Amino acid sequence: MKARQFLSDNAAAVHPRVWEAMRAADEADAPYEGDALSQELGARFSDLFGRECAALWVATGTAANCLALATLCEPHGGVVCHREAHIEVDEAGAPGFYLHGAKLMLAEGEGAKLTPEAIRAVIDPIRDDVHQIQPHAISITQASEYGRCYRPDELAAIGELAKAHGLGLHVDGARFGNAVAFLGCSPAEAVGQAQALSFGFVKNGGMSAEAIVFFDPELAHVACYRRKRAGHLQSKGRYLAAQVLAMLEDDLWLANARAANAAAAEIASSCGDRLMHPVEANELFVRCSAGEREALRAQGFGFYDWGSDAARFVTAWNSDPDAAIALAKAIGSL
Amino acid sequence: MKARQFLSDNAAAVHPRVWEAMRAADEADAPYEGDALSQELGARFSDLFGRECAALWVATGTAANCLALATLCEPHGGVVCHREAHIEVDEAGAPGFYLHGAKLMLAEGEGAKLTPEAIRAVIDPIRDDVHQIQPHAISITQASEYGRCYRPDELAAIGELAKAHGLGLHVDGARFGNAVAFLGCSPAEAVGQAQALSFGFVKNGGMSAEAIVFFDPELAHVACYRRKRAGHLQSKGRYLAAQVLAMLEDDLWLANARAANAAAAEIASSCGDRLMHPVEANELFVRCSAGEREALRAQGFGFYDWGSDAARFVTAWNSDPDAAIALAKAIGSL
Amino acid sequence: MKARQFLSDNAAAVHPRVWEAMRAADEADAPYEGDALSQELGARFSDLFGRECAALWVATGTAANCLALATLCEPHGGVVCHREAHIEVDEAGAPGFYLHGAKLMLAEGEGAKLTPEAIRAVIDPIRDDVHQIQPHAISITQASEYGRCYRPDELAAIGELAKAHGLGLHVDGARFGNAVAFLGCSPAEAVGQAQALSFGFVKNGGMSAEAIVFFDPELAHVACYRRKRAGHLQSKGRYLAAQVLAMLEDDLWLANARAANAAAAEIASSCGDRLMHPVEANELFVRCSAGEREALRAQGFGFYDWGSDAARFVTAWNSDPDAAIALAKAIGSL
Amino acid sequence: MKARQFLSDNAAAVHPRVWEAMRAADEADAPYEGDALSQELGARFSDLFGRECAALWVATGTAANCLALATLCEPHGGVVCHREAHIEVDEAGAPGFYLHGAKLMLAEGEGAKLTPEAIRAVIDPIRDDVHQIQPHAISITQASEYGRCYRPDELAAIGELAKAHGLGLHVDGARFGNAVAFLGCSPAEAVGQAQALSFGFVKNGGMSAEAIVFFDPELAHVACYRRKRAGHLQSKGRYLAAQVLAMLEDDLWLANARAANAAAAEIASSCGDRLMHPVEANELFVRCSAGEREALRAQGFGFYDWGSDAARFVTAWNSDPDAAIALAKAIGSL
Repeated sequence: MKARQFLSDNAAAVHPRVWEAMRAADEADAPYEGDALSQELGARFSDLFGRECAALWVATGTAANCLALATLCEPHGGVVCHREAHIEVDEAGAPGFYLHGAKLMLAEGEGAKLTPEAIRAVIDPIRDDVHQIQPHAISITQASEYGRCYRPDELAAIGELAKAHGLGLHVDGARFGNAVAFLGCSPAEAVGQAQALSFGFVKNGGMSAEAIVFFDPELAHVACYRRKRAGHLQSKGRYLAAQVLAMLEDDLWLANARAANAAAAEIASSCGDRLMHPVEANELFVRCSAGEREALRAQGFGFYDWGSDAARFVTAWNSDPDAAIALAKAIGSL
Repeated sequence: MKARQFLSDNAAAVHPRVWEAMRAADEADAPYEGDALSQELGARFSDLFGRECAALWVATGTAANCLALATLCEPHGGVVCHREAHIEVDEAGAPGFYLHGAKLMLAEGEGAKLTPEAIRAVIDPIRDDVHQIQPHAISITQASEYGRCYRPDELAAIGELAKAHGLGLHVDGARFGNAVAFLGCSPAEAVGQAQALSFGFVKNGGMSAEAIVFFDPELAHVACYRRKRAGHLQSKGRYLAAQVLAMLEDDLWLANARAANAAAAEIASSCGDRLMHPVEANELFVRCSAGEREALRAQGFGFYDWGSDAARFVTAWNSDPDAAIALAKAIGSL
Repeated sequence: MKARQFLSDNAAAVHPRVWEAMRAADEADAPYEGDALSQELGARFSDLFGRECAALWVATGTAANCLALATLCEPHGGVVCHREAHIEVDEAGAPGFYLHGAKLMLAEGEGAKLTPEAIRAVIDPIRDDVHQIQPHAISITQASEYGRCYRPDELAAIGELAKAHGLGLHVDGARFGNAVAFLGCSPAEAVGQAQALSFGFVKNGGMSAEAIVFFDPELAHVACYRRKRAGHLQSKGRYLAAQVLAMLEDDLWLANARAANAAAAEIASSCGDRLMHPVEANELFVRCSAGEREALRAQGFGFYDWGSDAARFVTAWNSDPDAAIALAKAIGSL
Repeated sequence: MKARQFLSDNAAAVHPRVWEAMRAADEADAPYEGDALSQELGARFSDLFGRECAALWVATGTAANCLALATLCEPHGGVVCHREAHIEVDEAGAPGFYLHGAKLMLAEGEGAKLTPEAIRAVIDPIRDDVHQIQPHAISITQASEYGRCYRPDELAAIGELAKAHGLGLHVDGARFGNAVAFLGCSPAEAVGQAQALSFGFVKNGGMSAEAIVFFDPELAHVACYRRKRAGHLQSKGRYLAAQVLAMLEDDLWLANARAANAAAAEIASSCGDRLMHPVEANELFVRCSAGEREALRAQGFGFYDWGSDAARFVTAWNSDPDAAIALAKAIGSL
């Protein structure tokens, strides 16, 4: 029955190749980020994005997001994000902690995606005086909290806006792999003009390693100090670097994301009008009554309720294709 | 030659039983701290300390120390610690971050240990007025930064002082296992009247899991929110819980610490007057000239310089006994 | 023409009796809050509220609000307030600074007033888990940002709710005098079950002194340290205490507030349907077109635009009754 | 007997010309810092220092120091200051609050003055790695906490060091006037290469207004937001601006400081070897036994004990010359 779990990708097993890489890192090396693996991260991400970048491992997406944002927004500034952004809704106030009280400025937008118009609706009314918090940065989520993906031209438009207003741009990529897999573009195209990306691996086959990718080395320099100061510089950092490198090796991250997306697409194929959002990544928000949910659970499917009239299904890198087919069939038969 | 490394215990390999436990945790369970293993921590530490306690895993000692201290000291207060305490010297200002600007109040003391007198020398001159920061807590390190251990009666005296002044008491136990192994007492005796203990496992055979043990459940409740807020609540927390439980199982932590201490004692046996501090745990601070250090390195021994006239050797749970004997012989022959 | 200014009460002249009291304080006394006048504040407010309270002067309402809230909400918590509350909209993020990143949780409500229902709509959906910020306190404004007053029974209902949920309650009383003047009740009835009140004097004839009144002495004790830590403990505090005491003497605060309210009522009498909010204090929000506003300005009346279709008029303790009559007439003639 | 008070300059009366200027500001003007007087500050300080500068009023020296430092040091950095600096010893942790946990790095130095050597002794041992807090700025006090003045060449040397290490430089000038009066140089020479100066007026005849003078307009821009965020932007800022302008008018600040210094010099003339520090400003630290202090107090002189074997006398702008002569005589007769 375990195979029928579609609760979340953030509790899935660790990919065998990640395990192997961790075991291979067992031999002692320099502590913290001084080991050979950690030192290799920057080069590997530079390869991936086709331009120089610096990368830091951290254990959680919350830490990645907040350390990135702390380089883009001063304590007296604000970060524009979607009203349903993870940093606003699910991080227990971590941005307030890491950014020393800076404010999240909430914008609307379909599918938890921002648009230039939505951003402008937030920042344009702000008087340029000291009584109001001024925006310093924008944070978007790729794929969004509803599994929606920003197209390269959408990113470009937001990037332009950010540039025009002197705002930093951060991408929360907890499911960045799923977005790239869906978009079929390069990672560089999927991140646009952002200065920093939280590149998620934990939901995609890793154990405890995310990467903050900085496209501006100055910011990475600051983030290194902030990471240590936040207690996120692990002694045996090589085990985190090993995870990330294993995920990058032969684009395992992309293969895993494609597998998760494929399972989601399979399920989506039978959902029809029940879908609250187009399925572009590995999350499905499906209208169904309490009774229908009960029926699905009786068949062994695990998932979260989404309010009182819907369910959320999340596929993972290791979702059983047969289980996805079975779920599709079950939903189709409701 | 790798076997001859005495650089640090914080880069050592992970113990096989810890690896096994982590692999065994691979099957999906509830995310974050909702899994069965994480839920078991409190009971296991309660067994170990013989009284009810609550325990949280975190990835680093810095996070453990700071999350613990944040429950004992308000932002406008101060924490008395040794001038050479890790929280003062090596944590990049993490206490200032986690405690929102609270101050570390630096006390003197031989071997980086505090005494009631040393603490009083710091707090007694503080005027009880609003112009001066008032002490809220004390933090001591067991074993200390120089590998010295607090005896139960020393802890009791500090505990009395803390109580008399209404101060919280925290123990940084990055090498708590080594202290217990040396003292030959129970863990409860080695922690005294502290409200919170950072129980270190990473230096002692773990990979990325320390425990904050709270002897006051109220504090643990607050720390849970603060852990999430600091980005330290990992999605797949079961892998951290598994590490801690494996270390507790059959007192692996104690066996590992004894092994490290034994290797240190072996080396110490030939150091004579060269020792700057009595060796009570797994660290040795050994007077030796630059030339002598060069000679030792030529024999394949790895270690850090300690200033210009000394070397620091640290043994670990997996230090090769033969290498320790060889090092002892080499030092004896200098 | 100066007499026709209805821009704001926060730039009005200082009342002659306040000036006198300040001059009388010129003789040197103990610095900071050690002088006789500062020491008298607690007793005077205790008299006023009919129960023991402690009071601290500070120079601004923002400081008063934030120092009060910092005693009621921990850094990882949240404060429920109205979406248009001054602390949310006009204090440049000061609550984020003083509360170390705690969050303002925005509730709706007519006239910028909260109701138990509105508060529940914010706090009831919050899951009691560590991923979401938990509410610690409620802050309401008496009179509200739209000049509306909470009746004693409304305060009681909010007080009950706060108590039931273990939440602190703070009243921003930047225009508390105007509220009491309107309600015709005692100050105690106008503040309800709050633990702390920011009692405003600057808008009501003072120069640079507000009072934080604590109905729980423990909180005042903490706030004293926080005030100094925030750089708000002035050397020559006696000049602030003198202002507050002069305002309390013979209820000058009430007389001043009544004068301001009377001027507002005079103007309101001719506004009819133009009023966006009932006038219960000294602010009027009046629908009028750009052309109408131009016409009023041509007659020498000063005021702020309120969006594109309205104007805000604020009366003060020293508003010229004739000017108020003239404005009433002018509005009536539009 | 009041005339014989030498307790502190921070409780002295307000100078008549300051009172006059405040009264003259009574007519309503724009609130906050929008009034004509506040807008004039920058030009007046630019005149005084002979180069463009921006200036903000604040109510306290603590706020001035901390708002200035917050523009020069990031939260993860450190500020080098003297072990006995006011920001370290007497501001209740305000720098920790305003700088979000940044650290004060304590240097030694005679007379509470820093030297390049003393600064280097603090910063040179700091490893350039993320485990240690890196210095971002230096703060010196002119005149120092022991009433000692930095000569222009001493300031130049510190300025060079700061520049060479990329460190900001702040001058706490709570008694800047006394320093300029003693040095006989221009204000510009007395402040050296600092980016920011806390120019104190409260101890020198003002009531509640200090100025932060920025020699880099960018920093002032940030400080404006931070001032509001700290609750230090007063509604009726014109009363603070009026104080500062009155002090600048015809160099009242300098005349007042000279008067205070002259009284101190008078007293010093009879102290001989009793002086613990050369008297260069308006403070005297005088060795005398408990019995001698008692004898002085019996003659009506007021002052603070300085430890068990000394007394501190502080003169003010309005110290009675006859009282100073009497005190000199009394000390000479001990």
